Amino acid sequence: MISVREAKPGDGEALVTMARALAEAHGMGETFALTPEALEKDLFSPHAIIGALIAHVDGVPAGSAIWHRSYSTNRGGEVMYLEDLSVLESFRRRGVAKALIKACAGVAVRRGYRFMYWSVMEWNAGARQLYSSLGASEESGFITCRLKDDALKAVAE
Amino acid sequence: MISVREAKPGDGEALVTMARALAEAHGMGETFALTPEALEKDLFSPHAIIGALIAHVDGVPAGSAIWHRSYSTNRGGEVMYLEDLSVLESFRRRGVAKALIKACAGVAVRRGYRFMYWSVMEWNAGARQLYSSLGASEESGFITCRLKDDALKAVAE
Repeated sequence: MISVREAKPGDGEALVTMARALAEAHGMGETFALTPEALEKDLFSPHAIIGALIAHVDGVPAGSAIWHRSYSTNRGGEVMYLEDLSVLESFRRRGVAKALIKACAGVAVRRGYRFMYWSVMEWNAGARQLYSSLGASEESGFITCRLKDDALKAVAE
Repeated sequence: MISVREAKPGDGEALVTMARALAEAHGMGETFALTPEALEKDLFSPHAIIGALIAHVDGVPAGSAIWHRSYSTNRGGEVMYLEDLSVLESFRRRGVAKALIKACAGVAVRRGYRFMYWSVMEWNAGARQLYSSLGASEESGFITCRLKDDALKAVAE
């Protein structure tokens, strides 16, 4: 039994556990700095820019989706960027990711968003197959540039 | 003489002209729906998620940057995503893009962001060279998935 609901106060620890598992799987565990306190503060502030959904399987936290409000100059309005979609190893291949994406799409539609978007690693054939089966289009041919920490400060001067 | 400042009420039309030029250059002119009114409403609302900078060359609008507040679960906080960086054709190769990125970096640092990031087309060697020279790192190997309009609604049901 998979159930998905919006995150509520007290979910921070489960959400961070799952976000960290995802970061580690992508080799980004070393810089991972999110804490349950910071996440709950950002999630439940009056004008939050992020939202989260949590999936349970038979009552046990199994996966999560953390999204943020984004903006499309092309569409001329707010849209949803799905930042993290995490399913714990032992709960894979049961439809948890699909249930989470469906719930995100529901949030996006209720907020009047024209689209939701996210990134997937090129090598992740299983995930790409799922996303395509849900009707998502794929866009390739671009690179992400990131200016961070000391390099950011140097450019700002 | 290049000057860059944050957008103010009345800049909507110049900003949309430049955003449209960028969309058309990327073959996305057909879906372009941003209006000066919508943009100014979103820019100057009390809890705006977007910001804009405008560059003038000898007093004439020459380029613009529209960014939105984003979120990094890895860093555990808000960051900047540079959505549109547009320099009008007749003002290229004069340092306008560099001046705009420097100004964005200044905004990011003042807001306490740990990084800013943006996308560049793989074929755009000139832009990539500029970004690298500023200290930006490049990340490739992923694909953007987008679920939009009717496909989004279908998944939400």
